[in-house]
Amino acid sequence: MKHALLFSAMLFGTIGAAHADDPLSTWNNTSSKQAIEQWVQNATNKDRSTFIPPEKRYVVFDNDGTLWPEAPLTFQLQFAVDEVKRLAPEHPEWKNDPVVSAVLNDDLKTVVASGEKGLIQLLELTHSNITTEEFNQRVSNWVDSHRDNRFGCRYDQMSYQPMRQLLDYLRENGFKTWIVSGGGIDFMRVVAEKMYGIPPEQVIGSFSLSEFSLTDNGTQLRKTMKGAFNDDAAAKPVAIHLFMGQRPVAAFGNSDGDLAMMQYTASNPDYKTFGLLVHHTDAEREYAYDSHPPASGKLVEGLSLAKEKGWAIVDMKHDWKTVFDPALCK
Amino acid sequence: MKHALLFSAMLFGTIGAAHADDPLSTWNNTSSKQAIEQWVQNATNKDRSTFIPPEKRYVVFDNDGTLWPEAPLTFQLQFAVDEVKRLAPEHPEWKNDPVVSAVLNDDLKTVVASGEKGLIQLLELTHSNITTEEFNQRVSNWVDSHRDNRFGCRYDQMSYQPMRQLLDYLRENGFKTWIVSGGGIDFMRVVAEKMYGIPPEQVIGSFSLSEFSLTDNGTQLRKTMKGAFNDDAAAKPVAIHLFMGQRPVAAFGNSDGDLAMMQYTASNPDYKTFGLLVHHTDAEREYAYDSHPPASGKLVEGLSLAKEKGWAIVDMKHDWKTVFDPALCK
Repeated sequence: MKHALLFSAMLFGTIGAAHADDPLSTWNNTSSKQAIEQWVQNATNKDRSTFIPPEKRYVVFDNDGTLWPEAPLTFQLQFAVDEVKRLAPEHPEWKNDPVVSAVLNDDLKTVVASGEKGLIQLLELTHSNITTEEFNQRVSNWVDSHRDNRFGCRYDQMSYQPMRQLLDYLRENGFKTWIVSGGGIDFMRVVAEKMYGIPPEQVIGSFSLSEFSLTDNGTQLRKTMKGAFNDDAAAKPVAIHLFMGQRPVAAFGNSDGDLAMMQYTASNPDYKTFGLLVHHTDAEREYAYDSHPPASGKLVEGLSLAKEKGWAIVDMKHDWKTVFDPALCK
Repeated sequence: MKHALLFSAMLFGTIGAAHADDPLSTWNNTSSKQAIEQWVQNATNKDRSTFIPPEKRYVVFDNDGTLWPEAPLTFQLQFAVDEVKRLAPEHPEWKNDPVVSAVLNDDLKTVVASGEKGLIQLLELTHSNITTEEFNQRVSNWVDSHRDNRFGCRYDQMSYQPMRQLLDYLRENGFKTWIVSGGGIDFMRVVAEKMYGIPPEQVIGSFSLSEFSLTDNGTQLRKTMKGAFNDDAAAKPVAIHLFMGQRPVAAFGNSDGDLAMMQYTASNPDYKTFGLLVHHTDAEREYAYDSHPPASGKLVEGLSLAKEKGWAIVDMKHDWKTVFDPALCK
């Protein structure tokens, strides 16, 4: 029986074929998936007026909340918090600092309430005044030694499996996939190649300028806070123009902070573009925090704009068969 | 006889084979060419300890004076001068400006003597307060309608043929070719793909930030002078880290302003790197202006550092069979 079945499978390719042949197998067959496939077919078919030449197939993805979770803190903020805790014993002078005290007391409400000023201070303590190599090593060490509190998984194994498939699917169809995120450019580049198959130069994010100097045995780039650029909202199209130098043909986001990038993409004068917003509706498998109660206010304008513009809205709960790759994070 | 020769050529591949098979056919067989070929062979041979994996083969080229001329003015400064002349009639208020007056009177000495301040002013008048599309169009129009004074050629047909061959040769061997130049990033990107086969995102240069806004019929990026970054000298490794996110394995320059980039490359801890400086020694076919009399002082430290570091120094006069591609610029 077993042999007969195997034989039949070899002849007719039935066992698992529907899955193996479907590059978006972790997506349910809903309107989101259909919209993606339809657009890709239109963009890659030479005989259609919607054809996009391969050299113009640049697509941009937000990262936090679009490719991996951003709750309860963004992973980068969690890294900063963990780094402050790790480094504090060497820095007794930090103790008088209210933001550091809040971090050490696990009082994240106070950290978040400290707003941009508090965030910049955390970045100064953990993301500057070290060489770029040392920073990369610290991020690697952190990724190796920490697990997400709720799911118990390595942070670099928590990409959304359907989005990971989508990245592969787009690349197989000749698209160049880029990240355009509010996250720090140096932080993301440590994990992006392994997690998403995206090389460092295709990762755009918030940045500040390093400082070059000659050393006794070579050269050194030291991270500073100079020229800080916050790659969010209206800054995203600015960064796309600066780094990529052309207008994308598709944009994927999850919050109102992605709308400028999505509108910039949608108004590409040359091609029929695509837009998609990930809607966090799945409290059980991930989080349900955006415009559902309790509303974070992260995705409000986007939901109405998506209707007007014809962008796909991914309902995580209904559109995705899996959230995380069960082989990596159960 | 003719047929016999053709037959013989088909059999033995003799006619023109030495040229056709040599990707660096416009280089004389001197130490510069030999050093390039030796390094590429070492870097691409899996059996050697000097092997560089394809995903690490990032190489950086300066532009002005390395890939195309920078005399008597850089081509971008010539563009700014020509634009001021074109636009001046619409701007009677410019007439009181000493830099503009100097430009209108073809008094380039005064323009150059105005230094960074004068340069920034020219950039403000010609490179800002217009949309990115309008700027690209203006550069295209200028390229189409102007010719180099001395050679009578289109500016976008004046790349150095041996360097153009070198770019192709490196790409054929799996290297990703990048430009890292003091020239304006937006200016260079208009011509780089056609001239050098280098796509916009692999062109790094001086930049300032654009400003995003929604318009009645879409979106707009407007060039400003905010966040101006002068991609020269110690800023080049900073920009390489920011845009490319990794350390190159080879660097090609022509002036002391390229030395930081070349030292950053040379101190790559993982691979045997390559460095090359183009030395402008050919007054007849191009220019002889660097450390030869009359010395411009552009390449002084570089010549001694090259010896110390083992970088190749290209003597244009002796190492190159051609300077410009005779099919494009005689």
